[in-house]
Formats: sequence, structure tokens, C-alpha cells
Amino acid sequence: MKQVNYALYKTTLVIGASTLKQVLWYFTNILVLKNSMIPFSGVKVFLLRCFGAVVGDRVLIKPCVNIKYPWKLKIGNDSWIGEGVWIDNIDEVIIGQSVCLSQGSLLLTGNHDYKKMSFDLITAPVIIEDGVWIGAAAIVCPGVVCKTHAVLSVASVATKDLEPYSVYKGNPAIKVADRIIY
Amino acid sequence: MKQVNYALYKTTLVIGASTLKQVLWYFTNILVLKNSMIPFSGVKVFLLRCFGAVVGDRVLIKPCVNIKYPWKLKIGNDSWIGEGVWIDNIDEVIIGQSVCLSQGSLLLTGNHDYKKMSFDLITAPVIIEDGVWIGAAAIVCPGVVCKTHAVLSVASVATKDLEPYSVYKGNPAIKVADRIIY
Amino acid sequence: MKQVNYALYKTTLVIGASTLKQVLWYFTNILVLKNSMIPFSGVKVFLLRCFGAVVGDRVLIKPCVNIKYPWKLKIGNDSWIGEGVWIDNIDEVIIGQSVCLSQGSLLLTGNHDYKKMSFDLITAPVIIEDGVWIGAAAIVCPGVVCKTHAVLSVASVATKDLEPYSVYKGNPAIKVADRIIY
Repeated sequence: MKQVNYALYKTTLVIGASTLKQVLWYFTNILVLKNSMIPFSGVKVFLLRCFGAVVGDRVLIKPCVNIKYPWKLKIGNDSWIGEGVWIDNIDEVIIGQSVCLSQGSLLLTGNHDYKKMSFDLITAPVIIEDGVWIGAAAIVCPGVVCKTHAVLSVASVATKDLEPYSVYKGNPAIKVADRIIY
Repeated sequence: MKQVNYALYKTTLVIGASTLKQVLWYFTNILVLKNSMIPFSGVKVFLLRCFGAVVGDRVLIKPCVNIKYPWKLKIGNDSWIGEGVWIDNIDEVIIGQSVCLSQGSLLLTGNHDYKKMSFDLITAPVIIEDGVWIGAAAIVCPGVVCKTHAVLSVASVATKDLEPYSVYKGNPAIKVADRIIY
Repeated sequence: MKQVNYALYKTTLVIGASTLKQVLWYFTNILVLKNSMIPFSGVKVFLLRCFGAVVGDRVLIKPCVNIKYPWKLKIGNDSWIGEGVWIDNIDEVIIGQSVCLSQGSLLLTGNHDYKKMSFDLITAPVIIEDGVWIGAAAIVCPGVVCKTHAVLSVASVATKDLEPYSVYKGNPAIKVADRIIY
């Protein structure tokens, strides 16, 4: 059997920012977002925009949020990023309007080709369309599109696209109901 | 299809503390509990009581615990709150005697009515009765009563009440065994 | 029915380090590893070795890693410890070469005998052999051996040994495929 050897690994990731910008964001993210010594959402939105994120109006960023690369992030109007949310966006993450990412949820954009000895990195964007609710401690995997007004229940794991106006549950998440809004 | 609009959202949450008390707790929680620069459990118990929590004797609070509103928290004698536990109690959380919340477990008390355009907040208390063990990285959902001496296994998710002296596993958790104590 | 009483609990854990060493590591872990005010992996590897860990060459320690007792940790060459990984090693954790612990994964070594009134602590080592990939937010339970080149998928929970060159998924994790490396 062949064996992996991470010494062969070469990253092909395009980070898309200067080293200085990366370092400044690293500490801004830890001090202001992740450790939340400044609790005001407006300050965090301002800083995210300074680092290249496109952030709409009335967006709420709760404490202890962790964002990898703000220059690869778009958030629409009236969306909420809950406490302890982790947006691990080495690839693009696009979040629509009136989206709720509940506390402790995790968006992933990186994977590895585990069939190669060099364990190559594979990235894919995550798209969360308007009106979607990602429940507490739920996880969205790389490349997944959560279509408009889908709901991913607490602690569920979306490994495939979520259909519009549908409620998903489980690990992996499967559709369990329609979402009808009155 | 109708669409949600979070600009319509009006919180009805009764926080139950003055703004000053909330701000003081916010920083106490981050510095002393969550980041744990002061590791002594006794200091944390003292501070929780100062902010209105009812905490019994010989209670252990491990490092990096996150508690939302101590004035909505009761903990009985001899109970242990493990490292990295998150008690997200916007509603009451009542913990009995000799309860163990293992590391990384999460108690939730907030939900949203996803069938309404205004995405109304719904809260419900969590009750953890005497002798219950909540396993590492397990999650208890809003409104759930974990009855006396129930066990929720590692990484399981309690979406409904747990019966007394019963062991639960999975996401969602189902009963897999009786708990017999010798 | 008999009831547990944690006042009866007596720990039998052999920590294996002086109180001074434990205290120094507690703060080193929080400041340098967990809160990651020093992002350089080399500094973290150096400190881990100072505290008794055996760490190979070209090992990467990403930000916000949490390690309980470095003197109970071995990591082979070319292995990666991802962001937010939690190695809760009150017992030995042995990690081979070219192992990837992805972001947010958790290795557990402690358990309790929930059939005893005294709720005795039970510990067991975790062994992660060469070439294994533990996916993001996945959990390895106490006593589990992840055999060479096994893969534990995102958010899966390994409650039993993983066979070599096999892919596991779910909670609890079951084998879903062979891992063939080209």
C-alpha cells in the first residue's frame, strides 16, 4: 500500500492579500472578533470592511466570531453572525440577506485529496442564500450551496446542497420537512 | 413564497439585569471564565454568585467556561462544569446535585420560529436533574428536561426529554440502555 | 435506585508533573497555544518540547490549539495539528508521521464509570497511526486506535478502532469506503 507523505505537500492556495495585511488581520481577528474585548458589532463590521469584506447594512456580528480571510467574504443586509461562529473561508463565502448563522456554527471551504500521496488541498466556496438559517453548532461543508430559506437544524452537517424552503436534520443532513412561511 | 425579513424582528427577551450589570458580566465572563486567566474555581463560583447565580457547595468550574446570564442559573451541590462548557442561558438553566457537564458540552435555551417572516425568538428553560451526566461535546436543546441520572453520550444531541436512569446516544439521541448503579 | 454522589469521587489520575510545571504549562497553553498571541508554529513546538512532549520535524501547530499535558504527547514528523484542535490528553496521545488533525477536532482520553456511585475516572490512551486524517470537528474517543491511513470524516465520532486504509463516517463512525492511494 502506498503511504502519504506530507513533506510532498505543496499548497496551491491563493491567499489574495499581502503578508502585512494577513498579519494585521490575524491579530485583529483574535483580539477584536474572537476574544471580543470590543463587543460592539459596528466596530467589527467596520474592521471587516477595512480588510476587504463586503458587509451589508444592519449586519450583527456577535462575540467570539472567527473569520479567516475577510477579503473572501460577502454578507448581505440584515444578516446575523452568532456567537462563536467560525467562517473558515480560505475560499469565498457568500452570505445573502436575512441569513442567521446561529451560535457555534462552522462554515468549511477546505478539503484534502486523501487519495494522493501529497494530500493536495482542495478548496470550494460556500454559498448561503437569502433567508437561510444555519442552526447552532451546525456545519456546512466545502462547495455546499444552501438555497434560499433552507434550514439546517442544530448540530446537523450539510454535505450536499440544501434545497430551497426545506428543513434538514442529521449527520449527514437529510430533508425532513418543507419550510412554509406564513 | 414568502420571505423572512430580519428587519421586522423585535426581540421580546427579558434579560433581567441592568445594562451596567450586563456589561460587567460580559467582561468578567470573557476574562475570568472563558479565557481563564484566573484558574481557581472558587473565584469563579464567587463571581457567579455576585452576579445572581445560585451555586451550591463544592461546585467545580473548569477553565474556558462560557455562561450567558448568571442570574438565570442554578447549580446544586457537588456538580462539575467541565472545560469549555457553554451554558447559553438566555432562559433559565437549572442544574441539580452531582451533575457532570463534560468538556465542550453545550446547553441551548434559544430558538426561532422559522415559519414567521419576523423569525421570532422563542426561549425555553433547560433542566438537568440530580446525577445526570452530559458527555463531552454533547448538546441539550431548548426546553429539554434531562431527568435524574440520565446519561447523554459523547457528541449526542438531546432534542427531547431524557428518561431517568437511561443512557442516550446519537444525533438525535435515542435511549440505548438502562443505567444501573451498583 | 441508587444515586451518584460526587463527594465520594476520588481521582486516581497520575498527572506526571510537578505542580509548578502544571501551573507554568497552564498559562503557556492559554497564552501561546490557545489564544495564539504568538502565531509561529516553531515557538509552540519548542515550548511543547520544553514541557516534555516528543515532537518530530516539520510539525505544524496552527492557532488556538489546546493541549492538556504535553508530557503525555508524542507527534511524529510532518504531522499537522489544525486550528482549534483540542488534545485533551490526561492519558497518553501518540500521533504518527504525516497525520492531519483538521480544524476543531477533539481527542478524548477520559471517561467515567457511570455505574458506580463514586463516578470513578477511567482513562485510556489514543493512538493515531501514520497517515491518518482526522476530519474537521471530528472526535476520537478514549482508548481508540486509528490505524494507519484511516480517514475519519468531518464531524464524525470514532468510538471504536478504525481499520487501516479505511474511510469512516457518522456518529458513531462506520466504515463507508476503502482508502486507495495512487
